[in-house]
Amino acid sequence: MSAKAISRYPVPELDTLPEDIRERILAVQEKAGFVPNVFLTLAHRPDEFRAFFAYHDALMLREGGLSKADREMIVVATSGVNDCQYCVVAHGAILRIYAKDPYVSDQVAINHRKADITPRQRAMLDFAIKVALRAAEIGDADFATLRGQGFDEEDIWDIGAISAFFGLSNRMANLISMRSNDEFYLLGRSPRS
Amino acid sequence: MSAKAISRYPVPELDTLPEDIRERILAVQEKAGFVPNVFLTLAHRPDEFRAFFAYHDALMLREGGLSKADREMIVVATSGVNDCQYCVVAHGAILRIYAKDPYVSDQVAINHRKADITPRQRAMLDFAIKVALRAAEIGDADFATLRGQGFDEEDIWDIGAISAFFGLSNRMANLISMRSNDEFYLLGRSPRS
Amino acid sequence: MSAKAISRYPVPELDTLPEDIRERILAVQEKAGFVPNVFLTLAHRPDEFRAFFAYHDALMLREGGLSKADREMIVVATSGVNDCQYCVVAHGAILRIYAKDPYVSDQVAINHRKADITPRQRAMLDFAIKVALRAAEIGDADFATLRGQGFDEEDIWDIGAISAFFGLSNRMANLISMRSNDEFYLLGRSPRS
Amino acid sequence: MSAKAISRYPVPELDTLPEDIRERILAVQEKAGFVPNVFLTLAHRPDEFRAFFAYHDALMLREGGLSKADREMIVVATSGVNDCQYCVVAHGAILRIYAKDPYVSDQVAINHRKADITPRQRAMLDFAIKVALRAAEIGDADFATLRGQGFDEEDIWDIGAISAFFGLSNRMANLISMRSNDEFYLLGRSPRS
Amino acid sequence: MSAKAISRYPVPELDTLPEDIRERILAVQEKAGFVPNVFLTLAHRPDEFRAFFAYHDALMLREGGLSKADREMIVVATSGVNDCQYCVVAHGAILRIYAKDPYVSDQVAINHRKADITPRQRAMLDFAIKVALRAAEIGDADFATLRGQGFDEEDIWDIGAISAFFGLSNRMANLISMRSNDEFYLLGRSPRS
Amino acid sequence: MSAKAISRYPVPELDTLPEDIRERILAVQEKAGFVPNVFLTLAHRPDEFRAFFAYHDALMLREGGLSKADREMIVVATSGVNDCQYCVVAHGAILRIYAKDPYVSDQVAINHRKADITPRQRAMLDFAIKVALRAAEIGDADFATLRGQGFDEEDIWDIGAISAFFGLSNRMANLISMRSNDEFYLLGRSPRS
Repeated sequence: MSAKAISRYPVPELDTLPEDIRERILAVQEKAGFVPNVFLTLAHRPDEFRAFFAYHDALMLREGGLSKADREMIVVATSGVNDCQYCVVAHGAILRIYAKDPYVSDQVAINHRKADITPRQRAMLDFAIKVALRAAEIGDADFATLRGQGFDEEDIWDIGAISAFFGLSNRMANLISMRSNDEFYLLGRSPRS
Repeated sequence: MSAKAISRYPVPELDTLPEDIRERILAVQEKAGFVPNVFLTLAHRPDEFRAFFAYHDALMLREGGLSKADREMIVVATSGVNDCQYCVVAHGAILRIYAKDPYVSDQVAINHRKADITPRQRAMLDFAIKVALRAAEIGDADFATLRGQGFDEEDIWDIGAISAFFGLSNRMANLISMRSNDEFYLLGRSPRS
Repeated sequence: MSAKAISRYPVPELDTLPEDIRERILAVQEKAGFVPNVFLTLAHRPDEFRAFFAYHDALMLREGGLSKADREMIVVATSGVNDCQYCVVAHGAILRIYAKDPYVSDQVAINHRKADITPRQRAMLDFAIKVALRAAEIGDADFATLRGQGFDEEDIWDIGAISAFFGLSNRMANLISMRSNDEFYLLGRSPRS
Repeated sequence: MSAKAISRYPVPELDTLPEDIRERILAVQEKAGFVPNVFLTLAHRPDEFRAFFAYHDALMLREGGLSKADREMIVVATSGVNDCQYCVVAHGAILRIYAKDPYVSDQVAINHRKADITPRQRAMLDFAIKVALRAAEIGDADFATLRGQGFDEEDIWDIGAISAFFGLSNRMANLISMRSNDEFYLLGRSPRS
Repeated sequence: MSAKAISRYPVPELDTLPEDIRERILAVQEKAGFVPNVFLTLAHRPDEFRAFFAYHDALMLREGGLSKADREMIVVATSGVNDCQYCVVAHGAILRIYAKDPYVSDQVAINHRKADITPRQRAMLDFAIKVALRAAEIGDADFATLRGQGFDEEDIWDIGAISAFFGLSNRMANLISMRSNDEFYLLGRSPRS
Repeated sequence: MSAKAISRYPVPELDTLPEDIRERILAVQEKAGFVPNVFLTLAHRPDEFRAFFAYHDALMLREGGLSKADREMIVVATSGVNDCQYCVVAHGAILRIYAKDPYVSDQVAINHRKADITPRQRAMLDFAIKVALRAAEIGDADFATLRGQGFDEEDIWDIGAISAFFGLSNRMANLISMRSNDEFYLLGRSPRS
């Protein structure tokens, strides 16, 4: 394990945290085998922590036209254009696992136009990246393009909102120099067998 | 009152909303005399509504080195560079009221470098706008500049986090074409007497 | 009245000015009830003053397919993308009055794509902003789009020339830190009755 | 002589023009040996023509700390960053003549940082280009830099105003596709003898 | 092995290639265990292939103040800002191996400012990225900064030339949609033991 | 002849150079009447010199759908957007000679959209400039546009590769402050007779 600082800000000890936050962290540790640093670093501010993960869950665990892999793919692509190390590395791992594809995360993070994705996913990422970089220019034509790929209005809200929410996450990670766990780099990289 | 649509998405009737959300909306209506459209339009998704306002309150109602006017000033300046009509108009009104200054909101929204603000506020807005536009480049020198203006580490988190959170808000408003209430345009514009 | 400097440069006393300039200033004062600062600050250079207002009048008082409100709307939108505080505030007031609309100026200054304007006005502002930001890329397709909205060749010259002229004005205002009069902020804000 | 159109707009015959404009054009023809197309193309709108050249003369013929070559150098450098063919070619010729230097115009138009100019001229062009591209960011530090090179406040107004005025000129030339005269390309290119 | 096309252009069979090119390819296959796609795809044009790899070797195999890992780090960082999938993936693998660090490639490709590198490497990458994105602005101050980190003039040429050469490589890869070999993704990812 | 330095780096004496390089330089001197500075300045690194000119010749002397003037036109236009003084001046001269047109080089370097070129050349330059500035976005639609103008796949490779190669050349020239020979400025400027 790396001994590098994982945040510019103090990182609380688990046993000093409010009960609900400690429980959430222990649950993710149980499931993942380690605690992703976003949990520890944002716990510096318990109220923001709660709001952040409530928002995250509302968008990422929602039922709808987007698969879990689609949602993570949006995170990876937009975090790529926002130059966010933590999010590309951590969500890249999750995307590899959900998509059962060891290559797609790097492809999408570097240049989604050259990735092995479907035209529907390409349109989804084009829109998400436009929300990330030029949201003020989003208009009817963008909605029409997505509808032409079979997305409904709620799917489009999801795509845009995931891009907007991780834009917040990316900015926080860059603000506090959030460091990604070493474990993420290797997760999901073994070719499909 | 304008009959223009306030969102691309369905706007729920108050009496169809979950109790906690209806109560929050009625409370703000009681206080402001009208319901700001951000409450009605985001209520389309109750879970995201709850997370959004919990995050908002965690940042905007927090005690610390930033005054309420400072916090709103960050919102107005960053919403200006993100070209977000709802947020500039609505938070411009709130800033005029908190700052007891009928001019500062327009000045800060258009070009904060030419606004009637203190050097401390100028540094605060420079940082907030860098988080909004080039967060990946935030580094030690930026923190040092703010410390030189008397901000402590928690103030700096506040500045960056408010910029990041309203970056999310700005993107959502542009995504759904959130329309600002007519009432905001005139609030707080009478000169100090 | 604010005691803040209205220019980085000396502002001449009215009675030291050449007769024609003093008369123009007194006439505008008579009409508006106050002297807009652009008159006082540019009077520092009488020859440039005369050329500036001759150009202004040639474009803004011209008969043609553009209404006075259309012309002011171009000024507000392009001054918005050029981040010019004086021009957005002062011409925002004039636009509110000509358009008899208390909301349109802020909408157009922040993000004309989300403003309550006609498709014809939207095309007009798209073109004006392209002249402001990327004039070298103006070509036949842009002219065709405007013709498709009913503008003739002379109207298109007007749209482009107003954008170009106020690009000069915006740069001068930012150069000399021209401050807007306090009076402009409130003008034309009362809802239509 | 080229038979290519020199403007998208009608170019008036000399004898149809108002007396004062015809005289100005004949005078320049007498002096230069040909009529620069900017005179013919802008004469389509006599009032704008008069204001344009009055402004031009106020800035370019003014006495002060900037030499004629300095003024033209500002025009060439800013017209370069604005991608204006007419102005780079025409004022490039004038600069070569005033500076008695067959190389400086191309150098400055392509990349002023690599041109054979003095540090004082480098600072002058850095400022002029900032006014052309990012005028909203001009501030005290920029003025201090120029003062450090011996420019006084009026010189700085000149530098900024020439950049602003030719920004208007560049936009008009790109708007109407103003074509440069063939004669300009070769003027002043013979090495100093 | 993926069956996806590795180039928009025909990929020659090994036995149809000129002897020298076939030998180079066989040698790299012998060493790496597979043929990196850049060799096969560029072999479509034998003369350009020869020049490309001669240039590559002149820069990447050169003795000097830069280690092999330094050179590859420049490739990864600049290919990241140029959004080149092939180069980030392939050279990311090589950098992991040379640096004996399974994390540095992703860090540097996403945001070198947040990577676990030395101040000397940070300065090296800042310069390389400036050459990639704004070479026209490179000047004395940039050279001074690198000298302050102990680089000599020939090292600086190396840094700039590697950035420039891989800028060519990145553009070719994006032009022909060069696909990276699956093998690269996993190479060098096992933590140091 | 100018006594200004032609490179930040040492420029080797001809008689100290390897035989093959000296011969190439003497051959070009024989043909052109002078030695273009790119030969002398890059000879500081013989291996890179050989690779550079081998690459240059592979692209610029190749038979195919592009004329020699077309190839030079790509160099001039892309060197213009890359702000490279040496390449615009030197290749501008060569283009004037090949195209037998004293005006086209300046036009294309400043703003190719306003140049006297064919629609086919306009499409060629649009593509070349996109490779220079946004290669990651090159896709099927760009290839289709060029095919629609009669270019075949190999021509498209040529256009993109020339842009990519001179992007390398432009960056090297800006890195080392390569100075253009005085002779180039006047070459090919006499009107067709």
